[in-house]
Amino acid sequence: MPPALPWTVRLEDDKVVLIDQTALPGQLRFVECRDVECVARAIETMVVRGAPAIGATAAYGLALVAIASSSMDARGLMEDLEAAAARLRRTRPTAVNLFWAVERVMGAARSASGSGDPEEIRRAVVSEAERIAQEDVEANKAIGRHGAELIEDGMTVMTICNAGTLATVWYGTVTAPIYMAWDEGKRFSVIALETRPVLQGARLTAYELHAAGIPVTLIVDGAAAHTIREKGVDLILVGADRILRDGTVYNKIGTYSLALAARAHGVPIFSVAPTSTFDLKSSRSDVRIEERRPEEVTTVRGVRIAPEGIDVYNPAFDMTPPHLLTGIVTEKGILYQPLWLTIARAFNISTTAGH
Amino acid sequence: MPPALPWTVRLEDDKVVLIDQTALPGQLRFVECRDVECVARAIETMVVRGAPAIGATAAYGLALVAIASSSMDARGLMEDLEAAAARLRRTRPTAVNLFWAVERVMGAARSASGSGDPEEIRRAVVSEAERIAQEDVEANKAIGRHGAELIEDGMTVMTICNAGTLATVWYGTVTAPIYMAWDEGKRFSVIALETRPVLQGARLTAYELHAAGIPVTLIVDGAAAHTIREKGVDLILVGADRILRDGTVYNKIGTYSLALAARAHGVPIFSVAPTSTFDLKSSRSDVRIEERRPEEVTTVRGVRIAPEGIDVYNPAFDMTPPHLLTGIVTEKGILYQPLWLTIARAFNISTTAGH
Repeated sequence: MPPALPWTVRLEDDKVVLIDQTALPGQLRFVECRDVECVARAIETMVVRGAPAIGATAAYGLALVAIASSSMDARGLMEDLEAAAARLRRTRPTAVNLFWAVERVMGAARSASGSGDPEEIRRAVVSEAERIAQEDVEANKAIGRHGAELIEDGMTVMTICNAGTLATVWYGTVTAPIYMAWDEGKRFSVIALETRPVLQGARLTAYELHAAGIPVTLIVDGAAAHTIREKGVDLILVGADRILRDGTVYNKIGTYSLALAARAHGVPIFSVAPTSTFDLKSSRSDVRIEERRPEEVTTVRGVRIAPEGIDVYNPAFDMTPPHLLTGIVTEKGILYQPLWLTIARAFNISTTAGH
Repeated sequence: MPPALPWTVRLEDDKVVLIDQTALPGQLRFVECRDVECVARAIETMVVRGAPAIGATAAYGLALVAIASSSMDARGLMEDLEAAAARLRRTRPTAVNLFWAVERVMGAARSASGSGDPEEIRRAVVSEAERIAQEDVEANKAIGRHGAELIEDGMTVMTICNAGTLATVWYGTVTAPIYMAWDEGKRFSVIALETRPVLQGARLTAYELHAAGIPVTLIVDGAAAHTIREKGVDLILVGADRILRDGTVYNKIGTYSLALAARAHGVPIFSVAPTSTFDLKSSRSDVRIEERRPEEVTTVRGVRIAPEGIDVYNPAFDMTPPHLLTGIVTEKGILYQPLWLTIARAFNISTTAGH
């Protein structure tokens, strides 16, 4: 069964329509944005989240500017687009797909600006944004075809956070092999880590898998290692917000703990992500891990759970070194160890500085 | 500075007075019990929790029966006490201190019952319960004296759950070295894991350390491994609900994950517990890990965070194998590796079946 949900983000005439992920699992409702500031805030407040979904949403944010800009000439429109791109880049620093998607759309705009025709820039921006969204869905289905081979009847698959249809335009990354294997008639179950502080596992992954009729069991994050040992877990699939050329994976906080538990119990663990998640230029020291506001930890859905006046450390992501991973599932296939080598081959780059 | 809180549990005339830990950190209020059913429910609903506090509370529950029983003869009173003991043993299966405390009080009652005088049984039960509570505070101070030697100026100490004054009659187990070292003038900081699902770290540990003026930083459980790597943690102290003769530690869910992270980064990790927490007779297959209701995971403080209809696995505790521990801090001193040997020596038992 495919996802029971519509596209996470879509362009409808002059507005971007987003599933409001802050309202899930209680309500399925939508946020409509008519300007880029609304889109930027939707990213910042996690109305939309998940690296690929953020990328497509940012691209659509630029499309909104192209559609709505009152600039009558190409230069004015390009300035509006550059300002919007700068605003969007400031929303979330870790997800590389954001920068990648903004760059793609701006590249298309710059190419078209040579014509001096604002209409041509508009068309180029809108169609590049649409292409990014379409390609995301295509990439996820290809990820699903490759990744479904890892899943067998009777397995227990564990995942953290939500790298589901809700983290992408549609179909998901981690969930792509799950939806695809289920479609192929394989029967298995999924264990979802709730994923504090924002509870994407409890609120989104449990919701979308349950809606699709796939059995899902929810656990708290601290129960992961114990559950692996006591219940038996056959496969762990995690998303990625950024992957470096040596295979270093930045993903939701808790992924590194989970990878250590996987290693301790010999459970295969794959990061599942489209190639747009790869950052081949940066090294670890270049990557800034976003720290979010303390209230995400000290309150849950508006209810205070900690005393006033204490300190909070709230990194949104963590870093998992490549040696802890079994491989990386991409739309181009499954990359196995040594990751620095298989990544270099997949991207056709030199291996000399790759590890 | 000592704990800023009164005793977690005390006997006041004909009632047991408990700090209501379900109301923290919002409010410091008290629950008063006049019968054993009220005490049993307070344990089940986690008004009082923490292995040593549960033990003392159960002992006081028996004291209430002794004080309030309408039985006029020794045999009737003993029957009332046996029924109350059976009720109390059913409350929480993992905390060994519960069974230990009930056995101690019932042993005192049985000895006194030889006299045939119900008054003598009453006196024996009440004074044994008082002794258990007093000894708990004494043991914690001794734990503090031994454990404070592990703490140096400038250190960062990490802990999970609440093994604080609130988990004991007073002073705590994990917090005993912390309060003691702070009293000695050492200055350091504590990182508390929030400890889902019941959030004892956020609600109780952060609360009691902050109330005592000790700097505390709160993190989500999934951030533990990342925080150890990125921030540097010098010492990890965890409590225990049951310790076997080979050094296997049963403690709050998440402890095993934390121990794996400690091992990966070479951070010393000690379980801190009084000798009443040791279960020298059981093996791992004898220990039942309590599974609690799904609502602890699917709701937070009454707010729903997961969809209806999904499965939940909610073990309250996990098992940490002895090889992951650096040692165990008890009121008798610090037991180092090999734990099967140091435990055997501390308890004066044979080592032949100890490992």
